[in-house]
Amino acid sequence: MSRYPGVPNLVIRRLPRYYRYLTELMQSGTVRISSREFAEITGFTASQIRQDLNCFGGFGQQGYGYNVASLRAEIGNILALDKRMPAILIGAGNLGVALINHINFEHCGFRLVGIFDINPAIIGSKVNRWLVWDVAFLPDFCKEYRPAIAVLCTPPASVTELAKTLVELNVKNFWNFSQHDLSFLRSEDIAVEDVQLSDSLMTLSFQANEKIGEYE
Amino acid sequence: MSRYPGVPNLVIRRLPRYYRYLTELMQSGTVRISSREFAEITGFTASQIRQDLNCFGGFGQQGYGYNVASLRAEIGNILALDKRMPAILIGAGNLGVALINHINFEHCGFRLVGIFDINPAIIGSKVNRWLVWDVAFLPDFCKEYRPAIAVLCTPPASVTELAKTLVELNVKNFWNFSQHDLSFLRSEDIAVEDVQLSDSLMTLSFQANEKIGEYE
Repeated sequence: MSRYPGVPNLVIRRLPRYYRYLTELMQSGTVRISSREFAEITGFTASQIRQDLNCFGGFGQQGYGYNVASLRAEIGNILALDKRMPAILIGAGNLGVALINHINFEHCGFRLVGIFDINPAIIGSKVNRWLVWDVAFLPDFCKEYRPAIAVLCTPPASVTELAKTLVELNVKNFWNFSQHDLSFLRSEDIAVEDVQLSDSLMTLSFQANEKIGEYE
Repeated sequence: MSRYPGVPNLVIRRLPRYYRYLTELMQSGTVRISSREFAEITGFTASQIRQDLNCFGGFGQQGYGYNVASLRAEIGNILALDKRMPAILIGAGNLGVALINHINFEHCGFRLVGIFDINPAIIGSKVNRWLVWDVAFLPDFCKEYRPAIAVLCTPPASVTELAKTLVELNVKNFWNFSQHDLSFLRSEDIAVEDVQLSDSLMTLSFQANEKIGEYE
């Protein structure tokens, strides 16, 4: 089924960044860009970018560089950003609501089809245009809507069990904000993106302390 | 000023993950762990972990493995997690509030000392125990509190100018959620963590589409 077998995961991870910069370039009216300029903007080397794009056939022309709009379209196509695959979000607390408001799912390959929570005080209320459903409805809902992905905004203690339940319901891709890693579930069949925001903050703690010195 | 000159950035980036797993191990009562077991849990190889820790002097003992509590303490110390450096957050919208509620800044090296916004409807209100200040007070506030870091939850269009203003106010470390990269500001002096949540979602879009096939 895979369209791009053997392409390293690290290459895939760089594509969204290329896509973002190409979107900005397109919005600012740039029609084409040399590989050197594109390298400067993205912070990668020109040869890195060329290598990455060669995994998919390569899209530049010697002496011309890249056509911004068509390279963006190609990368969007590789990432399947136009597929609008059904997504559900579980845990409609602060973080869940912030993601619903902040993330443009439809620009990222998905459309949000359902929001779930276990809290009776939230169930039945609305977040934007979405009704919050009881997680008890997940089995029926998943049968009907076959979500491709679940966004997990639940507490860490319960997330492993929840993910296993979802796998049984045939939901096998997880965007995990629970602060408990699910990477151990990864397989041929199951994809996991653990988002550990604290890790990035701790990295800044190291850097701030190294550079600035003492904040006793 | 740097305590660890020449340690690769990628090594630093793995430390928070080690720290997290060690915290979980400690909480579950584990006193020591072999490098092989620790590798299994974290998903890195034992030799990778050994190499990483050797950058800081190495903390394991041949035949004993690692003492969980003391390795955790050492890594926490390297990351400066006990420094409670002053942090400010700018942009008290959905995402800003979610971060305030969701992130334990004090576990990550910082203490939140001020929240700012430009929206008159929000200025003067409270988010948890923090009053939301007018960004117009930033110059005075930064002189007084000397924040080590700014968490940027503002719209993408204004973030570059904001960051440059902050640099002039001597705030030189940025945790950037604005969806507009500030990595071009990085220097000896300035540290930037661009958090692009959409990138991770797009990666999942690729994976979901590759594995599951068609979601037309």
